Amino acid sequence: MSTSKTVRKVEVLSPVPADIDIANSVEPFHISEIAKDLNLSPKHYDLYGKYKAKVLLSVLDELEGSGDGYYVVVGGITPTPLGEGKSTTTVGLCQALGAFLDKKSFNKLSNHLHMYQFTGNWYMYTYVKQLPLCKAMLEIWYVFLTLLCKEKVKRAVKLAQVVTCLRQPSQGPTFGIKGGAAGGGYSQVIPMDEFNLHLTGDIHAITAANNLLAAAIDTRIFHESTQSDKALLNRLCPPNKEGKRNFSDIMFRRLKKLGISKTKPEELTPQEVKKFARLDIDPASITWRRVMDVNDRFLRKIAIGQGPEEKGMVRETGFDISVASEIMAVLALTTSLADMRERLGKMVIGNSKAGDPVTADDLGVGGALTVLMKDAINPTLMQTLEGTPVLVHAGPFANIAHGNSSIVADKIALKLAGPGGFVVTEAGFGSDIGTEKFMNIKCRYSSLTPQCAVIVATIRALKMHGGGPEVIAGKPLDRAYTTENVSLVEAGCVNLARHISNTKAYGVNVVVAVNMFATDSEAELNAVRNAALAAGAYDAVVCTHHAHGGKGAMDLGIAVQKACENVTQPLKFLYPLDISIKEKIEAIARSYGASGVEYSEQAEKQIEMYSRQGFSGLPICMAKTQYSFSHNAAEKGAPTGFSLPIRDVRASIGAGFIYPLVGTMSTMPGLPTRPCFYDIDLDTATGKVIGLS
Amino acid sequence: MSTSKTVRKVEVLSPVPADIDIANSVEPFHISEIAKDLNLSPKHYDLYGKYKAKVLLSVLDELEGSGDGYYVVVGGITPTPLGEGKSTTTVGLCQALGAFLDKKSFNKLSNHLHMYQFTGNWYMYTYVKQLPLCKAMLEIWYVFLTLLCKEKVKRAVKLAQVVTCLRQPSQGPTFGIKGGAAGGGYSQVIPMDEFNLHLTGDIHAITAANNLLAAAIDTRIFHESTQSDKALLNRLCPPNKEGKRNFSDIMFRRLKKLGISKTKPEELTPQEVKKFARLDIDPASITWRRVMDVNDRFLRKIAIGQGPEEKGMVRETGFDISVASEIMAVLALTTSLADMRERLGKMVIGNSKAGDPVTADDLGVGGALTVLMKDAINPTLMQTLEGTPVLVHAGPFANIAHGNSSIVADKIALKLAGPGGFVVTEAGFGSDIGTEKFMNIKCRYSSLTPQCAVIVATIRALKMHGGGPEVIAGKPLDRAYTTENVSLVEAGCVNLARHISNTKAYGVNVVVAVNMFATDSEAELNAVRNAALAAGAYDAVVCTHHAHGGKGAMDLGIAVQKACENVTQPLKFLYPLDISIKEKIEAIARSYGASGVEYSEQAEKQIEMYSRQGFSGLPICMAKTQYSFSHNAAEKGAPTGFSLPIRDVRASIGAGFIYPLVGTMSTMPGLPTRPCFYDIDLDTATGKVIGLS
Repeated sequence: MSTSKTVRKVEVLSPVPADIDIANSVEPFHISEIAKDLNLSPKHYDLYGKYKAKVLLSVLDELEGSGDGYYVVVGGITPTPLGEGKSTTTVGLCQALGAFLDKKSFNKLSNHLHMYQFTGNWYMYTYVKQLPLCKAMLEIWYVFLTLLCKEKVKRAVKLAQVVTCLRQPSQGPTFGIKGGAAGGGYSQVIPMDEFNLHLTGDIHAITAANNLLAAAIDTRIFHESTQSDKALLNRLCPPNKEGKRNFSDIMFRRLKKLGISKTKPEELTPQEVKKFARLDIDPASITWRRVMDVNDRFLRKIAIGQGPEEKGMVRETGFDISVASEIMAVLALTTSLADMRERLGKMVIGNSKAGDPVTADDLGVGGALTVLMKDAINPTLMQTLEGTPVLVHAGPFANIAHGNSSIVADKIALKLAGPGGFVVTEAGFGSDIGTEKFMNIKCRYSSLTPQCAVIVATIRALKMHGGGPEVIAGKPLDRAYTTENVSLVEAGCVNLARHISNTKAYGVNVVVAVNMFATDSEAELNAVRNAALAAGAYDAVVCTHHAHGGKGAMDLGIAVQKACENVTQPLKFLYPLDISIKEKIEAIARSYGASGVEYSEQAEKQIEMYSRQGFSGLPICMAKTQYSFSHNAAEKGAPTGFSLPIRDVRASIGAGFIYPLVGTMSTMPGLPTRPCFYDIDLDTATGKVIGLS
Repeated sequence: MSTSKTVRKVEVLSPVPADIDIANSVEPFHISEIAKDLNLSPKHYDLYGKYKAKVLLSVLDELEGSGDGYYVVVGGITPTPLGEGKSTTTVGLCQALGAFLDKKSFNKLSNHLHMYQFTGNWYMYTYVKQLPLCKAMLEIWYVFLTLLCKEKVKRAVKLAQVVTCLRQPSQGPTFGIKGGAAGGGYSQVIPMDEFNLHLTGDIHAITAANNLLAAAIDTRIFHESTQSDKALLNRLCPPNKEGKRNFSDIMFRRLKKLGISKTKPEELTPQEVKKFARLDIDPASITWRRVMDVNDRFLRKIAIGQGPEEKGMVRETGFDISVASEIMAVLALTTSLADMRERLGKMVIGNSKAGDPVTADDLGVGGALTVLMKDAINPTLMQTLEGTPVLVHAGPFANIAHGNSSIVADKIALKLAGPGGFVVTEAGFGSDIGTEKFMNIKCRYSSLTPQCAVIVATIRALKMHGGGPEVIAGKPLDRAYTTENVSLVEAGCVNLARHISNTKAYGVNVVVAVNMFATDSEAELNAVRNAALAAGAYDAVVCTHHAHGGKGAMDLGIAVQKACENVTQPLKFLYPLDISIKEKIEAIARSYGASGVEYSEQAEKQIEMYSRQGFSGLPICMAKTQYSFSHNAAEKGAPTGFSLPIRDVRASIGAGFIYPLVGTMSTMPGLPTRPCFYDIDLDTATGKVIGLS
């Protein structure tokens, strides 16, 4: 076993044990060790227990002048029930770059340099015992060895830091069907129970903030219904100890919006009192729902206010799962505390009866929401199984929101990785959902430029896209998926090819990662490689990080390094912001293969309203099934010629996008008859979590 | 200014600034410094940022053989809208014992010994510069000085550790009417924003666990309604990879309860399949509600399941505020991880249609709830303004639950304080609510014995009990409260006297703390002191810790020390557990001054049911207004001769008590027209919270 402080050599077993058993088999490094490796000063992070730390935004100020690392985004082909292993590949790639290929090991200096043969190639890698030697000596040693064995040894990446940026998973599904989301096999984030549950409380903060705003809405409608304009004003501006009435700071935001420049409540005309004190919210227009981080289907549609004290003000509404809250989208897209304050304040909860948008600041609660979110803005530092650093931050819903981890985490990671280093971030689902939103929403707001996009595929998923038989949970997998069938693979590559060309259009180099299963044949793997290169991929490589950890993704690491170093084009968005909402929707629809777009009456009405309210300059976040390029989840492969139906259009003004609904999206999952929780328990003697998958 | 590491001399201003300004005026010690002072090894705590740490239960194992400190409980007279300052007094007392009177300062050694005159007496106190001298030298110095000035200098307490144990406040009211709950003036817990918001996530964990159980209930009813017994069993016990069906560990708990000793699903008879797989929950019997840590009155009564997928299974239920969850009561009363696992599993959510109690373990979720609560069981270490240690843990609702902080925090504190040290814990409201439940529920489960009870009173509150005019929010205080009126005070002392005699009956020494206001007169203060001593108080002292910090509670500290050292009786409970539910209710009612108890038909039915279900041996937790000894909040003073009406009776089987409802208790507060949140914002330049009160 290696005794390096933060590169952990994990002993790999075959067959691969259960994820929680692998996670529990290693003792994680104290997170301050991981921080130290990143040259992160203790003043720039706060510990949360032994294995988590919140990295403070102050580090961005300190590193403002320094350069960024390479920026790599990992997406997938169109998902199938078989899974592709995007998170696992993201982690595996970083372990390869950071723990096996990275000369952080060299950097600290090694007294063991190993030659390692894997998938037909020789790799040189090292692990560190105790002796720290100087970096220069190691570099010389490295160059010498590279020259000596140049035919046999692939050139490893340059001395580099590698940071993985992942979304925080929703806690609800962990107890439902899905289980955890920390990667899998020998490519995981640890401790996996802390990753999947609570983490550092960010989602809890979102729940609290979202629901405080919801309570403020109904209570305000209630109080307005029973009070005169004058009484409302008097209650809103109570006399202080000296008997004087004043506006609070947040009220000046509303006064400014209303064009009222008076500074004392008593100066307002009766007309101004009405405009200021009466929000006059139209209950039917309220789009703000309550949230909970639990799979509770019975809360999807509820009637509230049925108690006698609420005087018959019953209203139909519902709960979404917390990660579907606009506040989660705000967290993912914000760039600073001040920016978050503004975004939270301008979130629109519905309209006044006159049709004007009503915001959180109109309700007086934007500041309190910011206070509730002030720690959540700091990303959480964790580690992979092999000891490379991970920033976990934000996890917005990938359909009604943009499904990417946070801008601040990526920004911090790019500075910490530094020139020559790598930041690998994941974009949920296929390029139609994850990467499209990564480029056109996230990169637009962050001004960051990726160099390389990895597209993860599996032979079995491609077979399904090629027309393979349906997969039914609980039934054995059809033989088509476990025995060689090159033509099925080739047929499925149309899906991969469209993801490659769509992604390449942004100006990045595309590397295809084939996440290998034991049943995949050489011919099948070659078919994918050929199809990928034909479709314009920079490279296509096979990897086995699930079974082998970072070692299994070394080829991928080398390909990604080369792809990053050889970018020839600038970043190109799919659409400019200054065209109409409809033109933007149509540009995206074309990238799906659609020949046109159909708008419902409701969608037309909403587009007209948002345009009138001045929101047409926002980017578009399509709420569409992830299971097909089209709106029909059953259409695998690469459908064309369909007309994309837009059922409704909504807006997340604080987060900063318009989201057209293509079909019906469930925003609150349910529990099955036998949820995952049946297996989950605590070993009360050791304090360890058991049964988490 | 003192430069002692963990005794902070705070500069006191007059008039007293706003709480948040005082809190922000000092730089808190790093919490590891506070831990070090408590001789707490880093392996026994986890940092949560710079100013909070979770103390791990492992410290109890390490200190198992060592002795406990003195155990002091702080309660109040019957509360009035004027407030009594119980939390403030709790903190002030500890600052006095720990920062001013405590020779922790001596312990570390001082190069400045000060004589301090306060309320007519001379006190000796010290603050520390740099030089650590040995403890023995200081002791000699101290004894010498004491001999030298024995007429003038009150003897301070012995070398001692002092730990404050406080409840975690609910976040909801912080944004509503109440504001924060960290104490006030110069007797506060800091940082007050971290104390009031999120803390270390315990209440969020309770919310998550409570609502996972709620989702499990409705989903189970839903799935049972559409599946045969056989299909249910097959879904609950799906085949593993080898095609074998097995019971999960948690299912054996239910099998055992049902008296079924078979170990394989296929061995069950059809009758046993039905018994095992069909919980057959009676929807009308469900007492488990959802919770949220937000003042959201519109959730008090709701109809759930109105979505089309829920197939018309609409049910009326509601949300309580999170601190009203039974899981909060479990957290407060549990003694270990293993104990918590059992309590969470045996929580009863309602009955089967046959009338049998259905538990969390029957639903398969007891283990998952424990996993969600595994970090919440560790108390959070914080500090007072003057740098003494505080353990914040649990905050169960004081009417439908027992309103006391946790047993584990008190147990850890008593070990950390050690022999001669002090643990000061707060019991919510008056002795009828807080102290009664502290003694008969909390001490019964913890086997801990308090030596001293402090009862906090104010002149103005006593005047109100004596018949003073009503106090209306927003209107100036009546002159009766701000000018001398000895007879009104004397009349009000009947309330204080009953709290004293009720509390003394438990075998503890009672010290009355008069929390002084500038308008209180010497004659009024003397009247209270005389009445208190006449009613059997060990001592009665005036204190000014709000305005002066620990210095202002020095007399109180000395009185408490003497009271602890001179206990003559053993702890005596108000009732034994082995009498009937009604006999227990009646014993408590008599202590209120009631001449009898009236039970509603519903209450009779529930008492009969709980007795039949085998729960009659539990202690009783009365859900009664805190504003009167009686059920009528308007009856101030010490009412007698009334008949106490019991409207309904419920049970928290996991927490371990039966709770009779005396009148109607609101378990979900609302927001006013102008909630506190209007003033709360973040200074995004400094990251500081503003406007929190």
